[in-house]
Amino acid sequence: MATTQLPPELVTAADDDLLDGLADDLNPHPMIVHQEAPRFNVTAMQSLLDGKLGPIKQEIRDLLVQDPLFIKDEYISHEDFREITFARAKRLAEHGLGAMDMPTKYGGRGIPNATLALMEILSHYDMSLVIKQGVHFGLFGGALYQLGTARHHEAYLPGLLSMDYCACFAMTELGHGSNVRQIETTATYDPVTEEFIIHTPSESARKEYIGAAAQHANLSVVFAQIYVAGDCHGVSAFIVPIRDENLNLLPGVSAQDNGMKMGLNGVDNGRLWFDNVRIPRENMLDRYAQVTPAGEYKTEIASESKRFFTMIGALVNGRVGVATSALGATKTALTVATRYANRRRQFGPDNAPEALLMEYGTHQKRIMPALAKAYAIDFTLKEMVARAEHSGGSEAEVRELETLAAGVKAYATWNNTHTIQNMREACGGQGFLSVNRFADLKGDSDIYTTFEGDNTVLMQLVAKGLLSEYGSQFDDNGMYALMRMLSSQASRDIAEKNPVITRLRSESHLRDAEFHQNALSFREQVALVETARRFRHQIKAKKLPGFVAMTRMQGDMLHLAKAYIERVILESFHATIERVTDEKLKAMLQDLATLFALNAIHEDAAWYLERGYLTGTKYHALRRQVDKLSGQLKWQAIYLVDAFAIPDEVLGAPIALEG
Amino acid sequence: MATTQLPPELVTAADDDLLDGLADDLNPHPMIVHQEAPRFNVTAMQSLLDGKLGPIKQEIRDLLVQDPLFIKDEYISHEDFREITFARAKRLAEHGLGAMDMPTKYGGRGIPNATLALMEILSHYDMSLVIKQGVHFGLFGGALYQLGTARHHEAYLPGLLSMDYCACFAMTELGHGSNVRQIETTATYDPVTEEFIIHTPSESARKEYIGAAAQHANLSVVFAQIYVAGDCHGVSAFIVPIRDENLNLLPGVSAQDNGMKMGLNGVDNGRLWFDNVRIPRENMLDRYAQVTPAGEYKTEIASESKRFFTMIGALVNGRVGVATSALGATKTALTVATRYANRRRQFGPDNAPEALLMEYGTHQKRIMPALAKAYAIDFTLKEMVARAEHSGGSEAEVRELETLAAGVKAYATWNNTHTIQNMREACGGQGFLSVNRFADLKGDSDIYTTFEGDNTVLMQLVAKGLLSEYGSQFDDNGMYALMRMLSSQASRDIAEKNPVITRLRSESHLRDAEFHQNALSFREQVALVETARRFRHQIKAKKLPGFVAMTRMQGDMLHLAKAYIERVILESFHATIERVTDEKLKAMLQDLATLFALNAIHEDAAWYLERGYLTGTKYHALRRQVDKLSGQLKWQAIYLVDAFAIPDEVLGAPIALEG
Repeated sequence: MATTQLPPELVTAADDDLLDGLADDLNPHPMIVHQEAPRFNVTAMQSLLDGKLGPIKQEIRDLLVQDPLFIKDEYISHEDFREITFARAKRLAEHGLGAMDMPTKYGGRGIPNATLALMEILSHYDMSLVIKQGVHFGLFGGALYQLGTARHHEAYLPGLLSMDYCACFAMTELGHGSNVRQIETTATYDPVTEEFIIHTPSESARKEYIGAAAQHANLSVVFAQIYVAGDCHGVSAFIVPIRDENLNLLPGVSAQDNGMKMGLNGVDNGRLWFDNVRIPRENMLDRYAQVTPAGEYKTEIASESKRFFTMIGALVNGRVGVATSALGATKTALTVATRYANRRRQFGPDNAPEALLMEYGTHQKRIMPALAKAYAIDFTLKEMVARAEHSGGSEAEVRELETLAAGVKAYATWNNTHTIQNMREACGGQGFLSVNRFADLKGDSDIYTTFEGDNTVLMQLVAKGLLSEYGSQFDDNGMYALMRMLSSQASRDIAEKNPVITRLRSESHLRDAEFHQNALSFREQVALVETARRFRHQIKAKKLPGFVAMTRMQGDMLHLAKAYIERVILESFHATIERVTDEKLKAMLQDLATLFALNAIHEDAAWYLERGYLTGTKYHALRRQVDKLSGQLKWQAIYLVDAFAIPDEVLGAPIALEG
Repeated sequence: MATTQLPPELVTAADDDLLDGLADDLNPHPMIVHQEAPRFNVTAMQSLLDGKLGPIKQEIRDLLVQDPLFIKDEYISHEDFREITFARAKRLAEHGLGAMDMPTKYGGRGIPNATLALMEILSHYDMSLVIKQGVHFGLFGGALYQLGTARHHEAYLPGLLSMDYCACFAMTELGHGSNVRQIETTATYDPVTEEFIIHTPSESARKEYIGAAAQHANLSVVFAQIYVAGDCHGVSAFIVPIRDENLNLLPGVSAQDNGMKMGLNGVDNGRLWFDNVRIPRENMLDRYAQVTPAGEYKTEIASESKRFFTMIGALVNGRVGVATSALGATKTALTVATRYANRRRQFGPDNAPEALLMEYGTHQKRIMPALAKAYAIDFTLKEMVARAEHSGGSEAEVRELETLAAGVKAYATWNNTHTIQNMREACGGQGFLSVNRFADLKGDSDIYTTFEGDNTVLMQLVAKGLLSEYGSQFDDNGMYALMRMLSSQASRDIAEKNPVITRLRSESHLRDAEFHQNALSFREQVALVETARRFRHQIKAKKLPGFVAMTRMQGDMLHLAKAYIERVILESFHATIERVTDEKLKAMLQDLATLFALNAIHEDAAWYLERGYLTGTKYHALRRQVDKLSGQLKWQAIYLVDAFAIPDEVLGAPIALEG
């Protein structure tokens, strides 16, 4: 275990004697310098982060540490890497870790969202395995479970969970990456034989980038435009066998390897083509629409558009999984860099030992806000999942959670790419060596900003959701009036209504949670009104077509989406803190929430300054607070990453461990 | 050749007929959509970018295209990759491309800085080769040539240029990455045998990350603390044979492979240890200090510190090479993503073809300012090199050029990392496939922000240089007076002295080069004064030790360094434009310079707003101009990357070329 296992008496004190004790007797990493005792109970923090899935997380950590199949080989061919990744996925299945949220009668554990524990802990270890098992259990399994009905569950779930077969998820097509609704693959019903004919009508319709399609998949769920009696009813999903048990392609199915990638080379991504492949009528996943043997298309959701988004909506859990996996990678990078910063010395005052990297202002600025952000995202994901589990299921609530999942996926994955890069640079040349983990973390997770929805597209979806929700609250005149009130000049009026807030710049004010909430809410509200108003201007006054207006407004929309997500994240952080009773833990979390909020305002300072919400002098004080707080928390960083509880054997990185 | 070879009459017009002609007859990439004819002569732009090294660049492009040794293999083991990289370096030597700046009598071409052409063009192709040849010809060769004397040149240069041996450069030690002056390896003179004894006294003294040390190097230049008659005289350089011609390690020398890395796996990086290895006295590179046979240390540079920096200064040409190589990688990424954006369609208005990626605002914002920045860095590097070639060699000038080289290295390499990431994301899932080049570009060049001086350390050096130059211009009182005048409140006073500039926000003003120069100069001056003043406050008022003050001020120092570099870059861009006579070329370059400048101000808007140099409304207008200009130039992007003249065969990326 990588966590510093502190006896309770140590945790509550912070004097030099205890630090000596820590260094001599208890610290499992003697190379790492501890300059302060922890200000909080590290085990309690780990429990908070582990959450209710803690026992499952520990089960996975133990498996990764104890089973020799999970020992990595630095030099491995991509062929061997694919095979061992497949074998590791099967090992997870043997331990019943594959689809823990499925019902026990099919071999699952019936624990909602338990898969997220797997996504996070495996991401400390190897993201090829995250994706290989995620495609099979999560994407294929999720489609089967959410879009299929009892007969599909009976027929396919037991084999899925035991991994008797390997499955893939054929949605994306070459020509229509993010634009799933425009896919071209066809599924034409033939009432004579009671079969669907799956067909790839053009090169741009080939299924592209499908995990497990190049080598291992026996079954695929294929998304296609469904044609019944000559009419197209939009995108539908079908179970299509593609390889026999000896992995020979079935007649009419062609596959091609996607070849080497920037990362995730343990996954056999490939292309698929279907040449009039016939499948039984029963293979249609028919929860939302059915085709009778005679060839009648029936559905309870009359609108094709609504049907499409209902179907896609049923699959968005994948986005929460991707965000969770990205967070797991972020935590791994933070752990390596933080430990290195607490042992590596470079330059220093004359006639004295060189300084630890953590003593440098730029280093603190790289690590501390990133740590605060990782905690913030962690709590937000937990809040989202809890809300979904307790949701009444109203359409408005479901839509809000979908919007949030899309936004948090984009936010967490961009943050992950950015943080890993920063942590690599913070480890200098050592960070470039594969053993120290950044090579894989970076290469593997880079595609996270693209798959399960390109981040730019997702953020636009979020903004559209906010704008349409906002628009629906007002009739045309009311909306215009409100917009006029709040826009441009008006944004300053709002600030002037808060003259106290605008002018205050004491430390107590700058660290006050109420100020942070006010600042992030103000930004979200004003961005919403400004964006709506500008949209209206483009369309009404400038007479631009809606699509053209949208392409021009993308920057505003992305900013609005970010403002929304950061406001939600801060609220989730504060909600988490409210539930914590341990005073020291609470105090540490409050500091982290403050750092997250100040940093978010700091990063968008130009926006606040443009609107007069910040004055120059207040901004000056605020950015100094980010530096100051980062400096004040710097020696706690080592404990904050200990609470991530990444076992040494899983972390690997020698620079984070030994001499 | 990837450039669109346009007949002159096409270049000057922009109507639909000509565009049709372009698409049908002349466009070598029929998949790529050209929405406008070029507004400038693409061949003339290429000539401007190629500069006086154009013929050499073309020679290298032709070699890479024509010699089958340079055909790449997607699936290659790291062992084979190392061997073919070595073979390719030797092929460069056969063609006399290795060290073209060396005198002809040793096999060079006597063309100053011709090596930069090689660094840039090879970076379009494969950066392992850039580094493999760069370590041998550039680092070892540079040390030999700059720090050695005639007898070293006679003895070693012919073999260096023909690559009869392979050489490495053993400066960095595990414990002292950026802090070269603190290295521990010793070179102790033994007057009895007239030998130096090279020794690694501790594990932290092992030579770390040395390119070619793991397998191929026969010779090394070793940096060590020189001890003569019991006295240490600081860091000195020595030629140390490490392997015989059969690549067996010589007695006393140990080597270890650094293993797999994030990139550059064609280079055999390794560690070296020396156990009392004896070398002849003559192997000391003795340009700046000599040891007599009897054991007397002699030098014309009495100060150890000055001697160290003189020696290191002689090697800084490497930083210009690294910046040039990073720029080559940046151009490659921009070429792939720009071409893809001009062919890939996704989403769009109802009942119409999907839109090209380049039609999206976020896409324009990703690509256009990055293109402008690449042009800006290119011209700056050329200006720097020209200044160095025509330098009178005064100490002040040499120091200024060293400072500039350090800063531009940091700026160009950070920009490269950032741009490649953005271009990868702009290509979606296709950008993740290795064939489309981002995998290697990203993995290989990531370490550029660290080697040849960690960027954070370099930027601090730049700031220190600026501060000490500034400090030297005033006596203590004068400095204080000036600082008081210019600081905090004063920065607003300056802005108020320019009320016209502060309030203007017309398009003509915002696109006026004088405004841009004013803005970047203002920032540099104010940042300099503010930083000096804060430093003084930390030391004089807060009584902090200098080192502690520095660790706290790092953020300010990095910002000051960036302000300086961007001001210089803009000046170089304007100086280049002044020399261009072709009006259309000039107009395009002016637009790019404007975009570079507006984007630089935009990226640092909070700083300008804090100081009242920008008002909220002016900032609003300015950021809209960045969007607007990016949109206006979007269909020229394809020609702007054509002028980079990367041959299709070198570019590789199918998404930038075929169907």
